[in-house]
Amino acid sequence: MTTEQAHGYSAEKTSHLKRLRRIEGQVRGLQRMVEEDKYCIDILTQVSAATKALQSFSLELLDEHLQHCVVAAAQRGGPEAEEKVREASDAIARLVRS
Amino acid sequence: MTTEQAHGYSAEKTSHLKRLRRIEGQVRGLQRMVEEDKYCIDILTQVSAATKALQSFSLELLDEHLQHCVVAAAQRGGPEAEEKVREASDAIARLVRS
Amino acid sequence: MTTEQAHGYSAEKTSHLKRLRRIEGQVRGLQRMVEEDKYCIDILTQVSAATKALQSFSLELLDEHLQHCVVAAAQRGGPEAEEKVREASDAIARLVRS
Amino acid sequence: MTTEQAHGYSAEKTSHLKRLRRIEGQVRGLQRMVEEDKYCIDILTQVSAATKALQSFSLELLDEHLQHCVVAAAQRGGPEAEEKVREASDAIARLVRS
Repeated sequence: MTTEQAHGYSAEKTSHLKRLRRIEGQVRGLQRMVEEDKYCIDILTQVSAATKALQSFSLELLDEHLQHCVVAAAQRGGPEAEEKVREASDAIARLVRS
Repeated sequence: MTTEQAHGYSAEKTSHLKRLRRIEGQVRGLQRMVEEDKYCIDILTQVSAATKALQSFSLELLDEHLQHCVVAAAQRGGPEAEEKVREASDAIARLVRS
Repeated sequence: MTTEQAHGYSAEKTSHLKRLRRIEGQVRGLQRMVEEDKYCIDILTQVSAATKALQSFSLELLDEHLQHCVVAAAQRGGPEAEEKVREASDAIARLVRS
Repeated sequence: MTTEQAHGYSAEKTSHLKRLRRIEGQVRGLQRMVEEDKYCIDILTQVSAATKALQSFSLELLDEHLQHCVVAAAQRGGPEAEEKVREASDAIARLVRS
C-alpha cells in the first residue's frame, strides 16, 4: 500500500535518512574488510553492529507508526482499526523472527 | 586481531562481496522509500529482508571460519584451540543476541 | 501495573494456558535429554523449538494487547494513548532483542 | 544421533539441569500470570526473560559442544570433522533464526 500522505516517521525523516546512510557506510565497511582479508571474527563483530543499527531504525519507525497511523485508525474506529493493528502485528512478527 | 593470511572465507570472497553490495543496495533502497514517503509497513518489510540478508552472510562466514580457522587450530591443539573456540562462541552469542 | 479488568488475551485464556503447558513440557523434555546424555545438537534443536513456541505465544499476546488495550486507550485519547503505545513499543523492543 | 558417551556438557550437567528447572519455573510463572489476569505487558516482560534464559543455556551448551565434540572430531580429521562442523553451523543457524 503506497500513500503520499504524512506518516508517523515524516517528522523524523532527516534523522532516519542520516541513520540509514550510516548503516550504508557500515555495509561498505564490511566490503572493505572482506577485500582487505580482515579476520573473520572482526567482520562478524561489525555485522552484529550493522544488524543492531537496522533493528533500532525499525523499532523507531514502528513506534512512530503505532503512535500516528494506528492511533489515528483506532480513533476512526471500525474494521480499519482492526486491519491496521493486524498489519502492525504482522510487521512485528517479521521483525521478531528476522 | 588482523591477519593477512588466508581465512575460511577467502575462497568465497567474490560471492561475499557480491552479497554485501546487494545488501548495500537494499539499504539505499530504504533511503529512497523514506525520501519518497512510502508507507511505514512497506519500509519495515524491507528492513526485515535486509536483516535476513546480513544474517545469511554472517552464518556463511561463521561456517567457513569454523571449517577453516577453528579446525586448523584444533589440529594444532593446545591453548590456541580453546581460545579459537571461545572467540567463535562469543561471536555466535553476539549474532544470536543481535 | 497489575489490573484485574479484562485484557486483550482474556478471551483466549484457555488456549494460552494450553500453549504454556506445552512449553513447560518442552522444557521438562530438555531436562530429560540432559539427564539421559542425549547428543548436544539434538538438545539444541529442541531449545530452538521451545524458543519459537515462546515467541509465538508472545506475538499473539501482543496482537491481542494492541487490538484491545491500545485501541481502547487511543479511542479515549489524550496522554494515556501515547503512554500505552510507548509501553507497547518498549515491550516490542524487548521481544526483538531477546 | 543419540549416544551415551560423554558430551561437552556432561561435566556441567548439574548446573544445566538447575538452569532448566529455573526456566521451567519461569514458564509456570507465566501460566499463573495468565490465570490471575495480570497485565499483558508484564507477561510479555517475563516471556523475554524466559527467552533470554533459554538462549543462555543454548549458547553454553554450544560452546561446550564446540570445545569438546567438534575439537575432538577436528583432531581425528577426515570427513567426520567437516560433518561435525556442518552440523554445528546448522544448529547455530537455527538459534540465530529462532
